Amino acid sequence: MAVGLQEPESLLPINGVRLASVIAGIKKNQSEDLVLIEMQQGSECVAVFTQNKFCAAPVTLAKKHLSKAEPRYLLINSGNANAGTGEQGMLDALQSCVLVSQQFACKPEEVLPFSTGVIGENLPVDKIASAMKKLEQALSVDNWIAAGQGIMTTDTRLKGVSRQIELQGKKITVTGVSKGAGMIQPNMATMLGYIATDAAISKPLLQECLIDAVNLSFNSITVDSDTSTNDACVLIATGQAGNEIISKKDESYKQLLQLIREVFTTLAQAIIRDAEGATKFVSIQVNSSHSVEDARQVAYTIAHSPLVKTALFASDPNWGRILAAVGRSGVEFEINKIQIYLGDVCIVSNGGRDPSYTEKQGQQVMSQEEIDIRVELNTGDKSACIWTSDLSYDYVKINAEYRS
Amino acid sequence: MAVGLQEPESLLPINGVRLASVIAGIKKNQSEDLVLIEMQQGSECVAVFTQNKFCAAPVTLAKKHLSKAEPRYLLINSGNANAGTGEQGMLDALQSCVLVSQQFACKPEEVLPFSTGVIGENLPVDKIASAMKKLEQALSVDNWIAAGQGIMTTDTRLKGVSRQIELQGKKITVTGVSKGAGMIQPNMATMLGYIATDAAISKPLLQECLIDAVNLSFNSITVDSDTSTNDACVLIATGQAGNEIISKKDESYKQLLQLIREVFTTLAQAIIRDAEGATKFVSIQVNSSHSVEDARQVAYTIAHSPLVKTALFASDPNWGRILAAVGRSGVEFEINKIQIYLGDVCIVSNGGRDPSYTEKQGQQVMSQEEIDIRVELNTGDKSACIWTSDLSYDYVKINAEYRS
Repeated sequence: MAVGLQEPESLLPINGVRLASVIAGIKKNQSEDLVLIEMQQGSECVAVFTQNKFCAAPVTLAKKHLSKAEPRYLLINSGNANAGTGEQGMLDALQSCVLVSQQFACKPEEVLPFSTGVIGENLPVDKIASAMKKLEQALSVDNWIAAGQGIMTTDTRLKGVSRQIELQGKKITVTGVSKGAGMIQPNMATMLGYIATDAAISKPLLQECLIDAVNLSFNSITVDSDTSTNDACVLIATGQAGNEIISKKDESYKQLLQLIREVFTTLAQAIIRDAEGATKFVSIQVNSSHSVEDARQVAYTIAHSPLVKTALFASDPNWGRILAAVGRSGVEFEINKIQIYLGDVCIVSNGGRDPSYTEKQGQQVMSQEEIDIRVELNTGDKSACIWTSDLSYDYVKINAEYRS
Repeated sequence: MAVGLQEPESLLPINGVRLASVIAGIKKNQSEDLVLIEMQQGSECVAVFTQNKFCAAPVTLAKKHLSKAEPRYLLINSGNANAGTGEQGMLDALQSCVLVSQQFACKPEEVLPFSTGVIGENLPVDKIASAMKKLEQALSVDNWIAAGQGIMTTDTRLKGVSRQIELQGKKITVTGVSKGAGMIQPNMATMLGYIATDAAISKPLLQECLIDAVNLSFNSITVDSDTSTNDACVLIATGQAGNEIISKKDESYKQLLQLIREVFTTLAQAIIRDAEGATKFVSIQVNSSHSVEDARQVAYTIAHSPLVKTALFASDPNWGRILAAVGRSGVEFEINKIQIYLGDVCIVSNGGRDPSYTEKQGQQVMSQEEIDIRVELNTGDKSACIWTSDLSYDYVKINAEYRS
């Protein structure tokens, strides 16, 4: 389906980043499944990872390598998550890094491994070994689209975006790709996201940009509340744009952060637009809350409710289900003081259906592909917005048939 | 579908309780939708209700009445939840109690009102008024089956059970009915459950019995994580069996509690067996946990995972999804120390797939209609068991089409 999601026709290259995407035979359908991203020496690279305790072997190893060295290569395979694979999984992830280090004359710890796909099957390292030469030959600054394709699993659309601004008289570019369609409630990380800029920025500030942008994007989406074992998001700054290194939170920092936020948000929303079985793209905004945490809790309770999600699928303005979800969220509020809106239509006020509400108004909003739900808690001045999809026959079909 | 659920052919009467079930025209399909339960004077009656902040008008009023008087009548309508109905809802609930008080010459506060059905529509009190005479004429001790039918909404099977024991040389009976199939994660209450015994027991101990049995039964089930606005569970003791009043926690208390637990658990499991679209009945047992709360949190995270639920529907031993759910549950454990079992088959140990596990073994367990998932956390000696259903096409269908 992919609700309102266009594939990018092209993505802008980032000076200092080369990419390759090849068919290694890890996926059953003989499509691209092995991606290498090379960063020019001197690039800054920061990353966040899944909070799932059963994190995959490549996540454990990537964290370790990040703490020991400056990354030069990212190796990403799709089709196999190398998760739930115990000791063998760790050996396979390490061996993958060694293969890259041998091909490109770097240290194994300068390689970060990433895997996405089926959980619980061993990684076919021999196939990765056989593909090393092809990977080297394919490296090019113009391969962002190919890399976006190579990391896809159940995605039906390539997810990528580029943005540019002028900063200190220099043109700054940010380009990124992401993947993900199910097992989506990232927690301090995303499914897979790789974003690079040619801006020059200090590592501590790059790290702050990453955390800020991830929280507003990949950490504000949910398809099915299931946090993956393999989520990871990487942000690279090559410093090739020629701007003075951004090392304090000045106007340049703010402008770059804004650009990075836009790229992250577009990539995160793309995951929801392409969510498994999605027929709706739903924004849930919770306002006038005592705290951001309360606002997020109410928003996620609505977003995870199977009854709300099936009503969205049916385009049924069954607002009682939204009200019931808000009521069980565990957040403190006075039921007579909150308002719930579908689009611009007030559906709940004063503890019950708003007197002016008509089913026809609700129906009009629910029939659209993009739906806004808004809750005013009236307990404070904080807010949060999260994005989610509906629960359709196709969600069940895709996930009931995934391995067969 | 109703997994392994037989309707009771008959239910044992409880001396001191009369019931009536009639067609008032609240449901669209002209089936029984109004039930009255009459308790003989001197009966003890205790109840628990939904924790949803948006609780329905009848819940608010029933709590108020319970605090003011000893209940004599329970009035239950199906087809309309009288929830999200604001001020008018409260007036309608009160008016229903007044109607009963006029018909049966009691005080309005001696009547507890209950409603279940669609949220957000006003209760047709005129239809309830018209049915009062019919209700009085229908009252009989032999109407438990009829009452079970009258409280059904999307249920496909009547849910009821009777149990008997000998206590102090007297025959003691417990009979109960329940309803519910969706919007099920009761929280300190159930959907609707009405259970009565002829045992003589003090009110404080009856209250303890209720809390104990509810926690092990209705508070240990989930279909879709959605806590209803109308959940309620009532336990009545008429004291007509002739036993000495149970007023301390002696052997008689323990035996009666055990009997009540059995009835509650059977009724709660019946809700899961008849869950909307269910094709599987799933027990999730979490053992050797640091605390009961941890065990319940892990169990509920598994039970609510749409990916686990669709794998259950597909009879797919996709154990990676169970592992991922345990990992994101937020509970502390060492991943190398836990074990996960499908039935008797160990699927995960030492942080990955158990070496002895074969897909064939997993397939054999998953193909059954009743599936046991067991997690050993190895962090302590507490445990919890909850019951849930799978996520099928029919769950989506039922909930996408509920109001149309």
